[in-house]
Amino acid sequence: MNWIADILWNDQGLIPAIAQDEKTGEILMVAWMDHVALTETVATSKAVYWSRSRKKLWRKGEESGHQQVVKEVRLDCDNDVLLLKIEQQGGIACHTGRRSCFYKVLKNDEWVGVDPVIKDPKEIYKS
Amino acid sequence: MNWIADILWNDQGLIPAIAQDEKTGEILMVAWMDHVALTETVATSKAVYWSRSRKKLWRKGEESGHQQVVKEVRLDCDNDVLLLKIEQQGGIACHTGRRSCFYKVLKNDEWVGVDPVIKDPKEIYKS
Repeated sequence: MNWIADILWNDQGLIPAIAQDEKTGEILMVAWMDHVALTETVATSKAVYWSRSRKKLWRKGEESGHQQVVKEVRLDCDNDVLLLKIEQQGGIACHTGRRSCFYKVLKNDEWVGVDPVIKDPKEIYKS
Repeated sequence: MNWIADILWNDQGLIPAIAQDEKTGEILMVAWMDHVALTETVATSKAVYWSRSRKKLWRKGEESGHQQVVKEVRLDCDNDVLLLKIEQQGGIACHTGRRSCFYKVLKNDEWVGVDPVIKDPKEIYKS
């Protein structure tokens, strides 16, 4: 699979992947992929990442149900960043219960949360 | 400046920054910022990155004229990725002369360039 060989992984064998809503263009999150995560993502059209904190594959939505259906995979000119155009199941990508992880805006030297919590994380992640 | 202290830099003291067209939502490029680049970006509303290859500050557009006017700066939930909503001068963000760096799409196990070169790089980067 030459397309995998084209990718420039970082020194931990990872590449960042941006998840963008394919319809609205909204940037929902950024996470990391290793070789296995990317291969599975492309094979299944469901986003799979590598969790750096948990040090294991993270099949997005495995706990929350908020899977990401991958419609298109793009690579940048330097071959070191991926862009996924996705359909976000449940409309929530962020573990805080917000639509997007990028909900903080710099205003007057402060990060201000401007986007609403759609669903309480306690309701999303039931143990 | 507490807003700078909130940021989680990587072990090289860098944070990735996504440049997104503020009007169309198109993702134009991803580059890295150090503390100085981010501070100058916010102070001047012009994107400044840290070039990992050249190991120096990279005032976007300093050679090409394709500056990025920063309209909004966002930070993600983990405080380790920045999102810049920008206005792209000249309509070209990529050093290949394309609008966006993400011009390659995975199709049938191959990366296929789908977006046109707007201007020959030789015309952009005259020495």
